[in-house]
Amino acid sequence: MTGAECVLRTLAGSGVDACFANPGTSEMHLVSALDRVSEVRPILTLFEGVASGAADGYGRMAGRPAATLLHLGPGLGNAFANLHNAYKARTPVVNVVGDHAVMHRPLGAPLASDIESVARPVSDWLRTTRDARTAATDAAEAVAAAREGAIATLIVPADAGWEDGAGAAAPVASRPRPPVPDEAVEAAARALRSGEPAAILIGGPLVHGAGLRAAARIAAHTGAELLHDTFAPRVERGRGVPTARPLPYLTAVATAALQGLAHLVTAGTHAPVGFFAYPDLPSRLAAPHTAVDVLATPREDGAAALEALADVLGAPPLPERPPAPAPAPPAGALTPETLGLAVAATLPERAIVVDESVTASAAIVPALATAAAHDWLPVTGGSIGFGLPAATGAAVACPDRPVLCLEGDGSAMYTIQSLWTQARENLDVTNVILANRSYAILEFEMQRVGATLGAAANDLFDIARPDLDFVAMAASMGVPGRRVTDAGELAAALRESFAEPGPHLVEAQLG
Amino acid sequence: MTGAECVLRTLAGSGVDACFANPGTSEMHLVSALDRVSEVRPILTLFEGVASGAADGYGRMAGRPAATLLHLGPGLGNAFANLHNAYKARTPVVNVVGDHAVMHRPLGAPLASDIESVARPVSDWLRTTRDARTAATDAAEAVAAAREGAIATLIVPADAGWEDGAGAAAPVASRPRPPVPDEAVEAAARALRSGEPAAILIGGPLVHGAGLRAAARIAAHTGAELLHDTFAPRVERGRGVPTARPLPYLTAVATAALQGLAHLVTAGTHAPVGFFAYPDLPSRLAAPHTAVDVLATPREDGAAALEALADVLGAPPLPERPPAPAPAPPAGALTPETLGLAVAATLPERAIVVDESVTASAAIVPALATAAAHDWLPVTGGSIGFGLPAATGAAVACPDRPVLCLEGDGSAMYTIQSLWTQARENLDVTNVILANRSYAILEFEMQRVGATLGAAANDLFDIARPDLDFVAMAASMGVPGRRVTDAGELAAALRESFAEPGPHLVEAQLG
Repeated sequence: MTGAECVLRTLAGSGVDACFANPGTSEMHLVSALDRVSEVRPILTLFEGVASGAADGYGRMAGRPAATLLHLGPGLGNAFANLHNAYKARTPVVNVVGDHAVMHRPLGAPLASDIESVARPVSDWLRTTRDARTAATDAAEAVAAAREGAIATLIVPADAGWEDGAGAAAPVASRPRPPVPDEAVEAAARALRSGEPAAILIGGPLVHGAGLRAAARIAAHTGAELLHDTFAPRVERGRGVPTARPLPYLTAVATAALQGLAHLVTAGTHAPVGFFAYPDLPSRLAAPHTAVDVLATPREDGAAALEALADVLGAPPLPERPPAPAPAPPAGALTPETLGLAVAATLPERAIVVDESVTASAAIVPALATAAAHDWLPVTGGSIGFGLPAATGAAVACPDRPVLCLEGDGSAMYTIQSLWTQARENLDVTNVILANRSYAILEFEMQRVGATLGAAANDLFDIARPDLDFVAMAASMGVPGRRVTDAGELAAALRESFAEPGPHLVEAQLG
Repeated sequence: MTGAECVLRTLAGSGVDACFANPGTSEMHLVSALDRVSEVRPILTLFEGVASGAADGYGRMAGRPAATLLHLGPGLGNAFANLHNAYKARTPVVNVVGDHAVMHRPLGAPLASDIESVARPVSDWLRTTRDARTAATDAAEAVAAAREGAIATLIVPADAGWEDGAGAAAPVASRPRPPVPDEAVEAAARALRSGEPAAILIGGPLVHGAGLRAAARIAAHTGAELLHDTFAPRVERGRGVPTARPLPYLTAVATAALQGLAHLVTAGTHAPVGFFAYPDLPSRLAAPHTAVDVLATPREDGAAALEALADVLGAPPLPERPPAPAPAPPAGALTPETLGLAVAATLPERAIVVDESVTASAAIVPALATAAAHDWLPVTGGSIGFGLPAATGAAVACPDRPVLCLEGDGSAMYTIQSLWTQARENLDVTNVILANRSYAILEFEMQRVGATLGAAANDLFDIARPDLDFVAMAASMGVPGRRVTDAGELAAALRESFAEPGPHLVEAQLG
């Protein structure tokens, strides 16, 4: 059995069942092994940024890692931006990166480069396997590391793939999240019992499932406000779901929102900082007079800590919320607001909403609070080109759930190749392209950083010259599409797409 | 004057007149400065891999650097693959990468990452500027380094851009290439006078212009064979141009070609190594019994060394070659061979041919020897997605020369967004997509590395499911296109495209 097959059998035995692949020559023995290890589903992408973004979407929803298969430094480079998002989200991912054979590496061949240097900023675990006999145990350790909420990058020299290995390695157990110390629970309880203005800020894996519910119990009982990180990896929202409010994106708005607090209890995240720095604005969002109590760091067992805190405080179970009706679909001009309402009116139960709507997000996200219960997956690392790939991966992870991708037109173009993989795998994704024909976020940020906007700068934000035809582009990759210009048309298009399996694209021309 | 404007004025004063840009918030003051520094032409791309590949194509043809403008670690990550090609080509490029403000960097904001770690494997010169007052002198040094045939990466924290700078810095002189020692010339002369079988292998900047002509003089006079690196950055070829033969790509063919040599004189390159390693094949291509004489390393003044060697050897000037007629256009089925002949029959004088035709290249490149004189730009670092961006940048560098891009269909999809920039800037590029609907190179390599090819592996090389419609895709980005299915149609389409300014796409459906 080749080293490559040992690696792949180890991945399969450790519970990895999907591999988003862009292989090259160095990975040929890993590709060959895919023929003999049918437990791992190979999913071809036309660009590595699609593979890494898909692994992010997959991992956020499945809670366990998919593999990527990448070609030396340049393949990893192409994957980097979406690995950055996954790294910030602490998404479990196992990257398998091929390298030259060990003897070939120092000779300066065209594809030789320092792969580890590229991998390090987006890898919690990083190793170049020594040879075919160490490859399988390294793979088992990589999966164990990834399962702890981490990016694990395993570099496999070509000869470690083609030589004889030592067989598959047994799965390695992941370490459980360490419990928080009792003192942290007691300190948080004191803060929330103080009677002074307080808020709870949750992040990481605590914004869905048990963590969210325990935090909501605490908030309901103590009157503390419940906030979540602006860009938490997976946020459970919608009708019937306990409400947490996203921390505002804008530094000035976020600092104003936190200004009155005497206490801020954090769990699964750090004390909040601004997305960017701005002249004359603070980077730390909590006021200097606000006491920050760390209930649980991102690596600790925050869900158990929140439940312990709820019990210590004597918080009763959350009441059942009466089912609310879906809002009526909007009519009239297509704006971010009416787009959000159209989604809220039509979104099926248990949908996954991947959100890279950028500037439009500020209007859309509030509207989605009235949609059917769903998971909302935003961009966690600020790296553009996340949406279409993550939607692709989420659909692979959850074939029984509809996926909606809200995607800015500028952002869509970074990883537009995703549509082809959606068509190839017949994934149930509705891609809505928000066509405002500009990098609107940059026009906006330009003013915030105090820079002046003249003709040359303005032109760099204008993507209407020439106009991008997303319907034709989708069709060229096998995805049927249509263009809508008002809110009623959009609601109808969404209903049709949600009712019909397979990928669709809707180009929403914003006024 | 802001630090950003000081940087931009320094770039302009140092001779940088084009900036391929994908800016974000951290770069807003650099964008704003573009309004006030009209000497630098901003060229917007929809993806950073287009910007870096365009800078490679620009630098190879202009012989001086363009700038890229990139957004933190993820923007640089997206640019990485084509920077890798430029790094291997020793193309002059100045990357300007924005970072968070210095005080914001350690706070763990979403976009914070170790930018230097990503930059290092593709940068000969790398610096994070300290503040607004150091930014301009750093920029001047970056340009000087790049002009020596290097990638210079300057990281500019946002506050170094927005604070007051110290004015533009004066250009810094580049160091001239060091001359080769006389002993190297004498040793090469002895080898070539020995009467034993000998070859000269040239690379880097020596495969066009003065270097190529001096090498050809030597070869004609001594009977040594003249070879060039398989993937030299810029190769002058075609009717009337002195002939050098590319070293074969295949390890087995290359070792056979070099087997009989007693001497191999290298200039502007290193002793040749295989592109990949293979089980049971050597990585070093020259035979153990072949003496390798290094006339000039890639960093030395190889053109002067070749001229000195030609003089020492008493080689007469090259004879004028009588102008050969253009070959007749082919007819019949569209194959790599007939495609090459169609190009040879129609290519205008002084065209630039950017070649990412991958498997088809083996048949196309020999045919191009009979085309009108042209510069041929292949992929130097094995990083796919080079062609369309490099053609874009070459067209910006040489607005008076037609550009032909020969692009594999699989490769095209890595950086397809290039077409939009070509349309936006009305660049005179003819893009020929070689549609064989597969990653043919991988099917081929699979056998060479001794791996078996089953259904799953085969499926990973098949990009016909679904079919990609490049004509529709080009139209969606503003580039007119047509599909051709035989050699005569292709020749006609090429003629029309070469006659009409602006970008065109031809989808060549290979049988």
